[in-house]
Amino acid sequence: MALEYVVPGLTEEVSEKIVAILQSRLSQEQEAALVLKHAHWNVEGPNFIAVHEMIDPEVTAVLAQADETAERISTLGGSPDGTPDAIVRNRSWEGLGLKGHQSTTDYINALIAYYDEFIANDRKAIAELDELDVISSNIIQDHVQELEKFQWFLRSHVA
Amino acid sequence: MALEYVVPGLTEEVSEKIVAILQSRLSQEQEAALVLKHAHWNVEGPNFIAVHEMIDPEVTAVLAQADETAERISTLGGSPDGTPDAIVRNRSWEGLGLKGHQSTTDYINALIAYYDEFIANDRKAIAELDELDVISSNIIQDHVQELEKFQWFLRSHVA
Amino acid sequence: MALEYVVPGLTEEVSEKIVAILQSRLSQEQEAALVLKHAHWNVEGPNFIAVHEMIDPEVTAVLAQADETAERISTLGGSPDGTPDAIVRNRSWEGLGLKGHQSTTDYINALIAYYDEFIANDRKAIAELDELDVISSNIIQDHVQELEKFQWFLRSHVA
Amino acid sequence: MALEYVVPGLTEEVSEKIVAILQSRLSQEQEAALVLKHAHWNVEGPNFIAVHEMIDPEVTAVLAQADETAERISTLGGSPDGTPDAIVRNRSWEGLGLKGHQSTTDYINALIAYYDEFIANDRKAIAELDELDVISSNIIQDHVQELEKFQWFLRSHVA
Amino acid sequence: MALEYVVPGLTEEVSEKIVAILQSRLSQEQEAALVLKHAHWNVEGPNFIAVHEMIDPEVTAVLAQADETAERISTLGGSPDGTPDAIVRNRSWEGLGLKGHQSTTDYINALIAYYDEFIANDRKAIAELDELDVISSNIIQDHVQELEKFQWFLRSHVA
Amino acid sequence: MALEYVVPGLTEEVSEKIVAILQSRLSQEQEAALVLKHAHWNVEGPNFIAVHEMIDPEVTAVLAQADETAERISTLGGSPDGTPDAIVRNRSWEGLGLKGHQSTTDYINALIAYYDEFIANDRKAIAELDELDVISSNIIQDHVQELEKFQWFLRSHVA
Amino acid sequence: MALEYVVPGLTEEVSEKIVAILQSRLSQEQEAALVLKHAHWNVEGPNFIAVHEMIDPEVTAVLAQADETAERISTLGGSPDGTPDAIVRNRSWEGLGLKGHQSTTDYINALIAYYDEFIANDRKAIAELDELDVISSNIIQDHVQELEKFQWFLRSHVA
Amino acid sequence: MALEYVVPGLTEEVSEKIVAILQSRLSQEQEAALVLKHAHWNVEGPNFIAVHEMIDPEVTAVLAQADETAERISTLGGSPDGTPDAIVRNRSWEGLGLKGHQSTTDYINALIAYYDEFIANDRKAIAELDELDVISSNIIQDHVQELEKFQWFLRSHVA
Amino acid sequence: MALEYVVPGLTEEVSEKIVAILQSRLSQEQEAALVLKHAHWNVEGPNFIAVHEMIDPEVTAVLAQADETAERISTLGGSPDGTPDAIVRNRSWEGLGLKGHQSTTDYINALIAYYDEFIANDRKAIAELDELDVISSNIIQDHVQELEKFQWFLRSHVA
Amino acid sequence: MALEYVVPGLTEEVSEKIVAILQSRLSQEQEAALVLKHAHWNVEGPNFIAVHEMIDPEVTAVLAQADETAERISTLGGSPDGTPDAIVRNRSWEGLGLKGHQSTTDYINALIAYYDEFIANDRKAIAELDELDVISSNIIQDHVQELEKFQWFLRSHVA
Amino acid sequence: MALEYVVPGLTEEVSEKIVAILQSRLSQEQEAALVLKHAHWNVEGPNFIAVHEMIDPEVTAVLAQADETAERISTLGGSPDGTPDAIVRNRSWEGLGLKGHQSTTDYINALIAYYDEFIANDRKAIAELDELDVISSNIIQDHVQELEKFQWFLRSHVA
Amino acid sequence: MALEYVVPGLTEEVSEKIVAILQSRLSQEQEAALVLKHAHWNVEGPNFIAVHEMIDPEVTAVLAQADETAERISTLGGSPDGTPDAIVRNRSWEGLGLKGHQSTTDYINALIAYYDEFIANDRKAIAELDELDVISSNIIQDHVQELEKFQWFLRSHVA
Repeated sequence: MALEYVVPGLTEEVSEKIVAILQSRLSQEQEAALVLKHAHWNVEGPNFIAVHEMIDPEVTAVLAQADETAERISTLGGSPDGTPDAIVRNRSWEGLGLKGHQSTTDYINALIAYYDEFIANDRKAIAELDELDVISSNIIQDHVQELEKFQWFLRSHVA
Repeated sequence: MALEYVVPGLTEEVSEKIVAILQSRLSQEQEAALVLKHAHWNVEGPNFIAVHEMIDPEVTAVLAQADETAERISTLGGSPDGTPDAIVRNRSWEGLGLKGHQSTTDYINALIAYYDEFIANDRKAIAELDELDVISSNIIQDHVQELEKFQWFLRSHVA
Repeated sequence: MALEYVVPGLTEEVSEKIVAILQSRLSQEQEAALVLKHAHWNVEGPNFIAVHEMIDPEVTAVLAQADETAERISTLGGSPDGTPDAIVRNRSWEGLGLKGHQSTTDYINALIAYYDEFIANDRKAIAELDELDVISSNIIQDHVQELEKFQWFLRSHVA
Repeated sequence: MALEYVVPGLTEEVSEKIVAILQSRLSQEQEAALVLKHAHWNVEGPNFIAVHEMIDPEVTAVLAQADETAERISTLGGSPDGTPDAIVRNRSWEGLGLKGHQSTTDYINALIAYYDEFIANDRKAIAELDELDVISSNIIQDHVQELEKFQWFLRSHVA
Repeated sequence: MALEYVVPGLTEEVSEKIVAILQSRLSQEQEAALVLKHAHWNVEGPNFIAVHEMIDPEVTAVLAQADETAERISTLGGSPDGTPDAIVRNRSWEGLGLKGHQSTTDYINALIAYYDEFIANDRKAIAELDELDVISSNIIQDHVQELEKFQWFLRSHVA
Repeated sequence: MALEYVVPGLTEEVSEKIVAILQSRLSQEQEAALVLKHAHWNVEGPNFIAVHEMIDPEVTAVLAQADETAERISTLGGSPDGTPDAIVRNRSWEGLGLKGHQSTTDYINALIAYYDEFIANDRKAIAELDELDVISSNIIQDHVQELEKFQWFLRSHVA
Repeated sequence: MALEYVVPGLTEEVSEKIVAILQSRLSQEQEAALVLKHAHWNVEGPNFIAVHEMIDPEVTAVLAQADETAERISTLGGSPDGTPDAIVRNRSWEGLGLKGHQSTTDYINALIAYYDEFIANDRKAIAELDELDVISSNIIQDHVQELEKFQWFLRSHVA
Repeated sequence: MALEYVVPGLTEEVSEKIVAILQSRLSQEQEAALVLKHAHWNVEGPNFIAVHEMIDPEVTAVLAQADETAERISTLGGSPDGTPDAIVRNRSWEGLGLKGHQSTTDYINALIAYYDEFIANDRKAIAELDELDVISSNIIQDHVQELEKFQWFLRSHVA
Repeated sequence: MALEYVVPGLTEEVSEKIVAILQSRLSQEQEAALVLKHAHWNVEGPNFIAVHEMIDPEVTAVLAQADETAERISTLGGSPDGTPDAIVRNRSWEGLGLKGHQSTTDYINALIAYYDEFIANDRKAIAELDELDVISSNIIQDHVQELEKFQWFLRSHVA
Repeated sequence: MALEYVVPGLTEEVSEKIVAILQSRLSQEQEAALVLKHAHWNVEGPNFIAVHEMIDPEVTAVLAQADETAERISTLGGSPDGTPDAIVRNRSWEGLGLKGHQSTTDYINALIAYYDEFIANDRKAIAELDELDVISSNIIQDHVQELEKFQWFLRSHVA
Repeated sequence: MALEYVVPGLTEEVSEKIVAILQSRLSQEQEAALVLKHAHWNVEGPNFIAVHEMIDPEVTAVLAQADETAERISTLGGSPDGTPDAIVRNRSWEGLGLKGHQSTTDYINALIAYYDEFIANDRKAIAELDELDVISSNIIQDHVQELEKFQWFLRSHVA
Repeated sequence: MALEYVVPGLTEEVSEKIVAILQSRLSQEQEAALVLKHAHWNVEGPNFIAVHEMIDPEVTAVLAQADETAERISTLGGSPDGTPDAIVRNRSWEGLGLKGHQSTTDYINALIAYYDEFIANDRKAIAELDELDVISSNIIQDHVQELEKFQWFLRSHVA
């Protein structure tokens, strides 16, 4: 993936490594927006309305994360791939193991498991980016703070 | 795909037909949100800023369409599938044939072609839904009005 | 119920039929606002606050529907009757069979049953209006879309 | 009407008396919202638009009064009855003696007469509540201030 | 009037017919905005301020109708003509028969007569468009609902 | 009335003349706010609500004029006198010749007469200020434009 | 001062007493708005801007108090007198003993003294109104709470 | 064109001259709103979206100018003529020499030429009004400042 | 606790008694804000999100109550003590008997018990203040209305 | 203090250390909100209003910091203690050494001293958290930036 | 400085004179924004917060003045020079004679002196522009009104 | 440049180094605001309006950066120098090498070159600040993220 240019102070080799890490994060952030909406539409049970409404602000949050990640890739001279095929192709994690109408508890447990992978991947990216570009690392650090807080919301329902 | 219930006035058989039509529209609406964002990040050239900013309100519009379509499926007793795998699996259309940084003109032409398929599929769905459920047909009719207007915006750049 | 005038393109006979249909819808829309508020005040149990708050936007929605229906009656030259006595007199449906403080589940089930009648009556009105006045039919079609979606919300709590 | 609990500092006997007074006020406040809307839709004549628009904020005001009254009943351990049947059953006052399209002057005079009863009933309730619960009395006192001001608006049209 | 392109699913012949119908509606919508403002400035008499203010939201409404109609023409590949000369040239209706300062009652009666033609033309257009393009028909149907409601406002002043 | 300082480019003698003119305008602007409110509270008759509501924005307007005039006096080094006694003492005009509850028409005619004096005094002040300070003249010019427009509103009610 | 009508539940004799008390409060509330603005324009010294800006919200507050008091008088069937002459004629208190540009401290002390009289008169009115009409008493009680809080603001500057 | 009244300080003869000048400006301001919208709908080419969007605020601006001009005519006792026929009849200028879909550059050049006439006519009106009524002159002066700025926007595209 | 001054109409002895009562209320209002937040952070179980979010508006409400109470103390010449040590020292009630993560039901029951004491103390303060200062009594009466309503919310979850 | 769970990527031992550090910060942030309000109510002197108003936004800021810190503790599996007793028990710093009404200068100096300890403790926490969890460190770093800026505001008053 | 074009009605020679005058005003307006911010950051003393906050709206005001002046230059065919070097090169006035942290009084006196020059230069420009272009003169006249009012604010602090 | 005080935890020597670095960043941020506005006023050509409007949000962004940087200097005990002379004196970079009206492409290329220096200087400052004060480093890191994103916008126009 040849770059069009580099930002002042970064070499081409370093920039390519950063772009590769960010592309993986972009795909998972885009997938997260889809699976959260999927849960939003399919949950059911006595807590339906509360859980249904709790999910929408998180969808907005991860869509904004994807936008920030993709624009950072372009800023660094790379080309972000945001098609659904890229999400499937780049998936190095398990994904959401739940289909159809299910109880709020089942979807909450499935999302907790999904976020375990999501956060672990983001924290691994931070560790690598810290050696390459502090600005890109800052971006993912802010994402993790949000994701971990939402995971607490999820966990509090099944404690 | 067994239904959980039906709305007053519709049979189970009719409801299943409606749900199948709407699921196809849901997948394309979700894909459209992804490919529009993809173009938003990858366009370049002298008209960059105007095209970049013109796309974002349309992303918001098709995300709202997807939400309305999916909630209609649940309203009818079906279970909407909003995962990225569903988008790829349900794709009976060509998709966006363009990758990486390209000129604004190239992305505009690619989006016009994508919208040709998108609108044709929606119009076909309207024709079928008119026989099954006027409320569901109304929903897709409103979507087409928006999609055709955005296609005019695109066409005016290359006229 | 003599009309004061008719809108251009409609005969007096047709107008009277439309007004009669709309008056029935008006009374049920006004009643729905009252019984939804009634449930809002009397639900109790572990899901109290979520169900209590879910009902208020729907009250606002059916009040707006009643206003639109009544103003359509006046537009057609008729006189809408919005007194509580008219609601009781026009009631050709069962009504809400629940009194006093009850669990959220009991009220949700009672409202689902109430909406079964409400939606069935509205869909019947649409079928009749389609032969008489497309504008009036459009108004009730929009109402049904909203009512069916709220019924899904209710159903998801007891699935 | 057995109470579920009492607020700290009030006996069960006193609470029951308060609830009975407030239930009467609730029914009239709900009726007022209906008859004001009824007038809103049926007035006609040279001052139509001004009178039509003057009524809507008052509808909003009495709907808010009903909500406050009903929630006070629940707060005191009682169960508010907000169905249309309760309005008709609890009616110890004359009601609005006017039907169909009428001149703005006729509706204004009818509403002035209706408010005479409404305010007199509220002032009587205040006198009784002052002996039982100052908080409940405060609530109805605020309602009277609003009702008397709106009656002045009405009176100024026919002075 | 040759078209630049057609939307997916419509033939060129059909599109031209739709455009011709919409151009007539566009001219009358633009004229309506002018004559309403004209009345806004020239009414006088005891109800001056109420009638003066009632007209402005309707001006906004018909300007938005004209914008929607014109953009639909462009969407269909046509070229909307929005010059004052087009209004005069396309006028197949009577127009407003009133000049200078006049009483509110005179202007209201003149506008009611104008709206009789306006609505009748729109309803005729709906009937023709239903055979050609449901999306375009929907647009004018929404316009009629608004126009008929405003005509009711006007009529209520002289009932 | 000794000045504390003068603005650059104006002599002390000129500044004192400007301040004297502006103090007269300040007193009448403050009085106008009071008499408009007085009318707002005392009008009655069939057009009550429309006239009652038409007056409040004009009160806001003349209060803002008074603030602008007084701050201009301070800017020029003078001391504005805003007490009720100053209004009475500075009154070189007739004032509002109407007391108590009166019909909307009577108050409108009284306000038209009051504005005749008010505008004539402001126009005389503009003529004098043009020779002394263009900035102060501009301020009163803007006030006249507003006052004359409101007088048209008043006049249109009795034309 | 003959009344036009009385509110339900009050005699004419009692109503006249209430109106007389409220008219005195109206005049002082209107005067307070004028003298506060006067101070707003004439203070000077190191704390100018803070004191200048602290006064404006209080002007808004007492103007709203005057409006509420005057509309209560009309509500009770009386005619509020809001002319500057009424302020001077009704003045049974000292008034503000300060003219021209003065230090912030001098104006603050003068306003504290003015508020001593203002609050004492309002508290005396409350004691009298408590025997006549609880609604009117409530109105002035709310005014006193605001006035006493603003007096604390003033006092804190000179402690 | 006989006047109904004159504002204080102006003779009838002078007022008629002002009204005649303002009527010409009103017609051109109304026409400008139409031709700007016309361009808004018919431009095409690579800069489509930027030019399309740049025009709408200017439409709002000239509509507000027309409203101000027409209300000034009424203020002066005249009757503004706002019908489309008046625009055509009063046209003493060239008008926009362009029809149908054209490039953004062609429409921009046509609008620059149109504004040359528009501004020149406004400046001529200012010169005449300066002798007649400074308030009316100020109104047109403010219009010219806006028009010249927009013309700069247009010119910068073709410089 | 010597006072700095007294408000017009209250003696020093009375003022000191009022201040002592209000200081106790201030401490409990500040404590309530802390323990509500404590529950907000520590609740868990299937109703987590609904209960978590229900608490925040009540925190805002009691913080505003504390501000109003403390500013009333200063208004009366006293010095409010708002340190954490004052809360502990002034505590004449039991406090919240619950620590750590617990179920929503456990926290709701603990808060109901806490509000029993809180409301009883406030009602006792009202009885005492009624003899001393009606303005201060009004303030606490408004607080009780809010507290009792929130206790109903709590109770409805465990009914 | 046993944890309920740990976030992905942190051990239980590390998590407990982080929670202990954050609990100390939470208690001081909650105390700061209390002592700032205490100063807000008790300052007096010529700069009263400016200092009184400058404090409120900082109260809002430290309340938001406490919320963020407590929710981070819960996110990490710990249980935040937010009771007033916890503030007193956890206090390892001096606290605010000032009581009762005092001059603005005295309170400003006392707050500067309080912030010296506050900031020093926060910077010490950052140093320790940098070794344990970058996300938690980021949170306190943002808090310090805000606290140091407010301390500059305080210092500038006594420079 | 050759011009690109001239506005209708102005010669090239006159236009160049206007541009030269406006360029001088632009440079001082840009400098004023910088020196006001400089004072905003460097003031200190007991009135810190009030003076600090009073300056920010004036910065916004002079930045808007600079924008208006520069766009007028472009409108007239000239090229505005907005670089820092232009400010230094065009400086024909003294500038702000104060550096580093200083008391609020010192900065206020320095700003008063700066504004003496600033206003005098603007008034001189107005006199010259009156002979050349009334529109440009109006622009600077509006600026002077704002500047003189802010100077009054400053002066009132040291009167 | 002697400091007035230091923040808790930093020595005077370290603080002076930080202040020197931040002063350089402040001057360039202030200059950037000026040269961006300069480009905003002087660009011309077919993409004029889009580029003209793209620049303004960036001006707002760098003005906010300058404010944050300057207030950090004051927070650390230093005195920020914000005069135009400081910008010229502190300039250790090339600056914008372009004057007068130029094409959008030329200004975009000049701004890309300017941002190369700007970003490189900011990244160098981050590296130095990381050793001195993490809070100050955080501030500049956030600035770089914004600057690099805007540079991508610029680059996309010339790719």
